[in-house]
Amino acid sequence: MHSEDADDLGVKEGEVLLLGFKDVELYVKVIITDSELTQGEVGLYEELTQEYHIPEGRKILLDIPAPTKSLEAIRKKISGHRLNEEELLSIMEDIGSRRLKETEVAFFVATFFSPGFDDDEITWMTKGMAQSGEILDFKYIKDNKGLVVDKHSIGGTAGKGITPTLVPILAAAGLVVPNTSTRAITSPAGTTDILESVMPVALTKEEVYKVVEKTGACMIWGGSLYLAPADDEIISVERSLRIQEFQKVLVSIVAKKIAMGSTFVLIDLPYGKGTKLEKPDDLEFLSREFEKLFHRFGIKCVTHKRIVRGPDGNGVGPLLEMKECLKVLERDEKRSEELEDVVIEMAAKIFENNGKAKKGMGKKVTLDLLD
Amino acid sequence: MHSEDADDLGVKEGEVLLLGFKDVELYVKVIITDSELTQGEVGLYEELTQEYHIPEGRKILLDIPAPTKSLEAIRKKISGHRLNEEELLSIMEDIGSRRLKETEVAFFVATFFSPGFDDDEITWMTKGMAQSGEILDFKYIKDNKGLVVDKHSIGGTAGKGITPTLVPILAAAGLVVPNTSTRAITSPAGTTDILESVMPVALTKEEVYKVVEKTGACMIWGGSLYLAPADDEIISVERSLRIQEFQKVLVSIVAKKIAMGSTFVLIDLPYGKGTKLEKPDDLEFLSREFEKLFHRFGIKCVTHKRIVRGPDGNGVGPLLEMKECLKVLERDEKRSEELEDVVIEMAAKIFENNGKAKKGMGKKVTLDLLD
Repeated sequence: MHSEDADDLGVKEGEVLLLGFKDVELYVKVIITDSELTQGEVGLYEELTQEYHIPEGRKILLDIPAPTKSLEAIRKKISGHRLNEEELLSIMEDIGSRRLKETEVAFFVATFFSPGFDDDEITWMTKGMAQSGEILDFKYIKDNKGLVVDKHSIGGTAGKGITPTLVPILAAAGLVVPNTSTRAITSPAGTTDILESVMPVALTKEEVYKVVEKTGACMIWGGSLYLAPADDEIISVERSLRIQEFQKVLVSIVAKKIAMGSTFVLIDLPYGKGTKLEKPDDLEFLSREFEKLFHRFGIKCVTHKRIVRGPDGNGVGPLLEMKECLKVLERDEKRSEELEDVVIEMAAKIFENNGKAKKGMGKKVTLDLLD
Repeated sequence: MHSEDADDLGVKEGEVLLLGFKDVELYVKVIITDSELTQGEVGLYEELTQEYHIPEGRKILLDIPAPTKSLEAIRKKISGHRLNEEELLSIMEDIGSRRLKETEVAFFVATFFSPGFDDDEITWMTKGMAQSGEILDFKYIKDNKGLVVDKHSIGGTAGKGITPTLVPILAAAGLVVPNTSTRAITSPAGTTDILESVMPVALTKEEVYKVVEKTGACMIWGGSLYLAPADDEIISVERSLRIQEFQKVLVSIVAKKIAMGSTFVLIDLPYGKGTKLEKPDDLEFLSREFEKLFHRFGIKCVTHKRIVRGPDGNGVGPLLEMKECLKVLERDEKRSEELEDVVIEMAAKIFENNGKAKKGMGKKVTLDLLD
């Protein structure tokens, strides 16, 4: 089978498929190639074609067996039972490789709302989600004691200009900051959309390594890197719901950061009317859960809670928001003080937590870098 | 628009769609025909084609607006809130007319398992499900005081031979019994499959009326009658789960009986290891819920609880099971006593509850009819 077809169908080398031709039914083992066949073609060993009289150039049927283990686990969860590690890993693997139907993914997504998952289940799911795709490693870049820093916001209406302002400041202090962002999930435009107004954001893995080696940082779209693909599948199914359960937000973000090889993550938690966090209890809950879940994967997490009353900065729309970022970095007189303040506070926190500034000196270090 | 296309898309006459052609965007009202157009074609009034320069034979885009009310209601339910009548009716209508995506239906199905629905919600949902399709009326047939009788089993492994044996007995006593059955949902073959071994089961509405007027009864496949189509859509989505929540079973059966215009229904509740009812509590719960829900629609319901230890009768497989039924009716010496006993008990219950036999005399009346 051609590798592109195998990818599309979520079929792996060595897997057993049911082959049908007229009244012949055979179980066959998949071998993947991209030189011997073109897309849409399937090759069979000569013994097979002769023994079963399958002439060349004919259509055959290939049936991919349903992933019973993961489907069984979804059934178990929807009936209110707890899942074990093996079950959650198999669900994530089968979602990531698109072996589960969209409706089956929807049944799984529904269980986030009720009955929900306990800490262990969340950990296993996060692990499985991260393992469903590429895992990158930037620890060897620069003599940084293996430190790989990132910042992530839970999103909502506010804060899309922060990343493009903050990341260059962190890199200027010598930190390694491979940052990925998303396009809009529940709002009309995401950080990726803003960045794309001035630079390419869909890089290959090789390009990402090159950029980070050269500059210490990158700001790219996570979607082109095959990071935690199970998450992308889930997002595409849950999009029409237009609401994300908090545990789902948590798993999503932590899995992507594991896949990017982060060792320190600042989580931006904007709260207030119109954001994703309208209730103080939700804010405290999510803050605690992020720290706990990151910790389970050996990643240090610091949360940054800030109240917002509207979009940060003076600009709205990708290009205007990008201009606001540049104004802060270029020390423009008309820069947004609000955006600058948020960025300085975050940079200070990151510096103080990673040996780049002493306690209480983070803001000064940041301002020195800016001026 | 051609009627077949409209059916496929779930579009109704008079509905407003968004038409796109190049940079033209228009809201257009749907008129359905099956004479002026062939399938896949769409016709536009000449005023439109001239004013907006849309040449003949070109592809246009038709966007069907998302059913926001029902989707909003599904979101509300999945977040744990109670729904009102209007919301449940709109969900059922939009599922029945296929305006909701399969994943959205899956989100709704998941809420049966958790958080579940209260009595009012179940009633409104049942009403909406029945109203999503045709509603038949057999009250005028025979001078029967508007009595329309039916029997339904919740299914599982046992009891598929009961209906083909019982219905003719009921009809022989002068009852009106328009019975519909299903093909397999969670088991490999259903009552419909057995009946189909000896007679046509996919009748049109007109044919059904004709058969019932002539014989007093029918035994047909419900699937060809557009009865409660919302249920069929839900069943197709939940099939891969291979489990049905009890509330779902309840709503499904009651909605179909409302659509068939039943006024008295005997619900067969087989219980025991290997059936859908393994726990005594489930049996009592379902029995109570059936009586309650039918009552809310003015339908009298009597449940028939019976323990089973395997398939009824001696035959397994459509043709053998059909032969077993005929043996009982023909008083064959080698008939299955087990099947006969069950059928006689049910017939007795139905006769005693509908003035065809005095209390305690139902079995005698049934035996007299058989011999």
